[in-house]
Amino acid sequence: RMGSPVHRVSLGDTWSRRVHADIDGERHGQSFDVERLTNILDEGAQNTALRRNVESIICSDPVFTCKDNYFMTQNERYEGAMRKTVHLHMTSQRLGWSEKEVNYAYSALSGDLALNLHRVFLTALTSLGSEEQIAKWEPLCKTFQIITTYAQTELGHGTYLQGLETEATYDTATQEFVIHSPTMTATKWWPGDLGRSATHALVLAQLICSGARQGMHAFIVPIRSLQDHTPLPGITVGDIGPKMNFDQTDNGFLRLDHVRVPRENMLSRFAQVLPDGTYIKLGTAKSNYLSMVVTRVKLLLGEILPLMQKACVIAIRYSVIRRQSRLRPSGPEAKVLDYQTQQQKLFPQLAMSYAFHFLAVSILEFLEHSYSAILDKDFSLLPELHSLSTGAKAMMADFCTQGAEICCRACGGHGYSKLSGLPSLVTKVSASCTYEGENTVLYLQVARFLVKNYLQAQMSAGSTPQKSLPPSVAYFTATDLSRCPAQRPVDFLCPELYTTAWAHVAIRLTKDSVHHLQTLTQSGADQHEAWNQSTVIHLQAAKAHCYYISVKSFREALQKLENEPAIHQVLKRLCDLHALHGILTNSGDFLHDGFMSGAQVDMARKAYLDLLPLIRKDAILLTDAFDFTDQSLNSALGCYDGNVYERLFQWAQTSPTNTQGNPAYEKYIRPLLQSWRSKL
Amino acid sequence: RMGSPVHRVSLGDTWSRRVHADIDGERHGQSFDVERLTNILDEGAQNTALRRNVESIICSDPVFTCKDNYFMTQNERYEGAMRKTVHLHMTSQRLGWSEKEVNYAYSALSGDLALNLHRVFLTALTSLGSEEQIAKWEPLCKTFQIITTYAQTELGHGTYLQGLETEATYDTATQEFVIHSPTMTATKWWPGDLGRSATHALVLAQLICSGARQGMHAFIVPIRSLQDHTPLPGITVGDIGPKMNFDQTDNGFLRLDHVRVPRENMLSRFAQVLPDGTYIKLGTAKSNYLSMVVTRVKLLLGEILPLMQKACVIAIRYSVIRRQSRLRPSGPEAKVLDYQTQQQKLFPQLAMSYAFHFLAVSILEFLEHSYSAILDKDFSLLPELHSLSTGAKAMMADFCTQGAEICCRACGGHGYSKLSGLPSLVTKVSASCTYEGENTVLYLQVARFLVKNYLQAQMSAGSTPQKSLPPSVAYFTATDLSRCPAQRPVDFLCPELYTTAWAHVAIRLTKDSVHHLQTLTQSGADQHEAWNQSTVIHLQAAKAHCYYISVKSFREALQKLENEPAIHQVLKRLCDLHALHGILTNSGDFLHDGFMSGAQVDMARKAYLDLLPLIRKDAILLTDAFDFTDQSLNSALGCYDGNVYERLFQWAQTSPTNTQGNPAYEKYIRPLLQSWRSKL
Repeated sequence: RMGSPVHRVSLGDTWSRRVHADIDGERHGQSFDVERLTNILDEGAQNTALRRNVESIICSDPVFTCKDNYFMTQNERYEGAMRKTVHLHMTSQRLGWSEKEVNYAYSALSGDLALNLHRVFLTALTSLGSEEQIAKWEPLCKTFQIITTYAQTELGHGTYLQGLETEATYDTATQEFVIHSPTMTATKWWPGDLGRSATHALVLAQLICSGARQGMHAFIVPIRSLQDHTPLPGITVGDIGPKMNFDQTDNGFLRLDHVRVPRENMLSRFAQVLPDGTYIKLGTAKSNYLSMVVTRVKLLLGEILPLMQKACVIAIRYSVIRRQSRLRPSGPEAKVLDYQTQQQKLFPQLAMSYAFHFLAVSILEFLEHSYSAILDKDFSLLPELHSLSTGAKAMMADFCTQGAEICCRACGGHGYSKLSGLPSLVTKVSASCTYEGENTVLYLQVARFLVKNYLQAQMSAGSTPQKSLPPSVAYFTATDLSRCPAQRPVDFLCPELYTTAWAHVAIRLTKDSVHHLQTLTQSGADQHEAWNQSTVIHLQAAKAHCYYISVKSFREALQKLENEPAIHQVLKRLCDLHALHGILTNSGDFLHDGFMSGAQVDMARKAYLDLLPLIRKDAILLTDAFDFTDQSLNSALGCYDGNVYERLFQWAQTSPTNTQGNPAYEKYIRPLLQSWRSKL
Repeated sequence: RMGSPVHRVSLGDTWSRRVHADIDGERHGQSFDVERLTNILDEGAQNTALRRNVESIICSDPVFTCKDNYFMTQNERYEGAMRKTVHLHMTSQRLGWSEKEVNYAYSALSGDLALNLHRVFLTALTSLGSEEQIAKWEPLCKTFQIITTYAQTELGHGTYLQGLETEATYDTATQEFVIHSPTMTATKWWPGDLGRSATHALVLAQLICSGARQGMHAFIVPIRSLQDHTPLPGITVGDIGPKMNFDQTDNGFLRLDHVRVPRENMLSRFAQVLPDGTYIKLGTAKSNYLSMVVTRVKLLLGEILPLMQKACVIAIRYSVIRRQSRLRPSGPEAKVLDYQTQQQKLFPQLAMSYAFHFLAVSILEFLEHSYSAILDKDFSLLPELHSLSTGAKAMMADFCTQGAEICCRACGGHGYSKLSGLPSLVTKVSASCTYEGENTVLYLQVARFLVKNYLQAQMSAGSTPQKSLPPSVAYFTATDLSRCPAQRPVDFLCPELYTTAWAHVAIRLTKDSVHHLQTLTQSGADQHEAWNQSTVIHLQAAKAHCYYISVKSFREALQKLENEPAIHQVLKRLCDLHALHGILTNSGDFLHDGFMSGAQVDMARKAYLDLLPLIRKDAILLTDAFDFTDQSLNSALGCYDGNVYERLFQWAQTSPTNTQGNPAYEKYIRPLLQSWRSKL
């Protein structure tokens, strides 16, 4: 018997012992088995049980409470996160948790732990380090003999890695690297855990040896004393101050003044510096980016997606409790989820929450499939992996940010209260548009991949045998319809039809962007200028391609579920909605070359609008299936029991604005109210 | 000689005494007179001088500093705001400031003052109160003998005013109203200044007299003792806790337990209750909404727009300092503003910042024109005023929120630092999507106005004389082209052409929504169900109409500037960009019925892309023209002098995360680092 969902544990208040009738009713007459859907999302019932066990341990341990998070200062959040992180380490040691269990714990405590960069360091170490380096440093990390961070971004340099200014100059005399920040803008800026916690940083720097610049490499640099935590000689380090979110994380700055580390501290799986300064390249120019690719893929399910899923859960649950206005004059006030406009706001986000789950899972599978080959220096799958992970990160960050914002605003004023949990989800997910690669830059990397493969497909079209394209762009050579065959609204509920429609648009836009590029070059622009002057168009093509991939992966996931009709039906509606929502919000792209007619857009709209009330029936169950605990939602609006107003009222009473007295009354308000007397 | 812009005063640091060469160069060779454009935005050079004088007093007074805002707790922000508000009151008294000067001070200190609802109360009093009531209460407010708030929204009820539950039952025996919160959801929730400051609230409640419910009316209710500020009998009042922004504001809750106020405390310009309980209606059903309309119009220029303008200033200034990647291999790293994708992000926001200025000014003029007639109970202009203000509020809140978010993300990681100023602009402006009427509800009110007038136009089309339509929908009866006449990209730079294109789309979508409504009714749906099932389409029509109005008002403002060719040229480019940006992001609506062809969309895109480098040349000057002081921007990225990195570094050093020691080291980090020893 697997563990019970933790959210069903009662909280001790009278009102919290009952489930609100308005949400309880939504859970009757299930059209599908919610528990089974949860198992599918967890990739197996055993995983569900394992996860719930970890969550129940966390929820019952008072150290892990996040009750007062919304009332805390940045310093308090940081201290709290360190407390929880250390306690989690002890707990997992004591209980002998597997890596999987530790990961479940990290997810459950998302946003409430420190030392996340310690895990990124480990990814980088195992991706870029030699076997000897891994053997030396991994145990030090895992037992927390050292605390590490990954220091790449600089004050003046982000996604463009070639522009990093920090230098690592090899000194043959001492067989050391001299790590140095030559300018103000070379200051490392943003790395998490750097500001106040880390003892060692993996510093990304331009390698200079034998008088030549060899590009970016990674160096392990001790930065704080293991005795008393003070900065080591040559190190200036501190915190970068308040941010939109991530109060619990000490994002930091680091300046290095000719700091020396031994030759062995350069991670050397793909490149080595011999004692005499000879540089030996073992990988490609891009192989040092491998750890970034891996980190990006892990983010998809581990960081970005749950934020939007939680926002959906909160907004949809609240929308069956909140009543506003009347659907007809004689009726009661209606649940806001019964309004078409509310469904139109929330259901595309719900559909995307599922679409992105299957997208991320498929990319994780591809990573698992290709990773060991790459470590063994077979780089043939790296371009596909890079393009997939880059596109998925940009797309998911974009749409999850937008989606969380929509959910937040769909809750009206209460969505704006921090106690709803939505502001922290919104401000947190929006960081993902920038971290681990700025989205626009990432989309343009996808665009380059598209242009390259499009030209490849063109060139080999005439010749035999055709050189095969990477799987994600294989559709470039598939037969392309020139007109959408739909004749009735119901035709738009055919996955084959809408996947093909997306493929058509992605191909047309790629073709358009290539054409634009060629026209500019032919009219005399050099290729760099031509590229810059067509980036707006490339961006559009890359986005269409990514949308196509997300529809395709959802469709493939559905195909595997055909023997479970109830689950298949409810997920297919979401897949349909996801595809159609994209078509309708980009209808110009489908109408542009006559692929679709205005009448067909109207049919698609009808099919779309007709899906909304069908999804409405299952909406609460579809949010329950994510199986978030009340603690991890940390929302007065989104709890499982639907007791929205009571919880909001109760939580507000404990705010420091109510418990700490009025700091302004004696000083300012009283004198103001009495000042008129002095003028009598 | 008018005052110098305050931002040119130096700050005392070495680097701050010089203007960064990268931004200085942008200001050479001006294509237009920046000072003149500032005067136009201020509606006169005298206003510019008056505003700068107020700003220089504020900037030189240490009480008004906002230096540490980003480091403060909610309690500290509230205390600071009260301090500044009281000091501003004293300063304005001492200097004998006019109302206009006080308004400039409020704008300069935007987001840093308390008692803003005191001003909303005054608007409501003068809109809804009788002359006697105004004579009694206005002086008490203006001299701060009382502190007031406007208490409308409830825990369970927002934009749908008929749903408000608070009751005011008239008691003939004592000639008093008994004000009461009958349920938990009737608790007043959100009013600013209510939580900890106000002594009196204007409570919006359902009037019950002579046994009948008479709808929502406004009642002045004392809530706190003027002696010691404690809640009066029957009053439960407090703060609602942390929000996404507005830390300085004590948004509050209020429960009333049979609280009695005299008959004279019901605002009675448009309705009276006689001593015997007879209810007398003097206005229309909607007249009690007048104060909301006025408040909404004042928000446009006073609250919403400056937030997006500031975000534009910060992002565009930063984008000429920030360099990233190379436009060509041999060149230096390029200013990010030279990338087409960055221009495509920021310039539409800049164009909208100007478009919305002229839109808001035109609606303010219409308000001034119609207000006194409405006070005199001539309600003929109220529907037009309501529709204009409602649509403009929804549109501006939507696009300014989106725009500020785009600006924030366009600054990469640094945009995410609170020190950039952007997070507080983003989180502040997003509240405007909900307050003073939820945007979707407001758009649907515009849609009802469109449907009504569209049917009116249809009906009177055959008859003579035609009943004239309100000015904002007069285009319904203008000749409508069936095809866009553009033949070359340059044709899309014709205001006549694109205004007509927007009119066409707005009419077509309105027609579509009416048709959809009628089809549903004819197939048996009742009218309320039919309305709900077509709201997604109505929303689309209302948005197109609002966009049309914004293009039209920008065009009309341009027409008045034709004798100033340099200013006209630079603003016309922004008007063109605003119109074309809307066409391109909604190209499906223009292609749908064949009004435009795919080839014409490509022409519009070419015209649009060609505008970007032209606007690029004037971009910094166009942001300078808003003439925000460095203090009011409060941004490490957006200062006039462009010393971005130095300021960011310096400001971070003063963060409490650096100045207050590490609260976690002794307690958690040291034990963690040493725990492995115990296992040896």
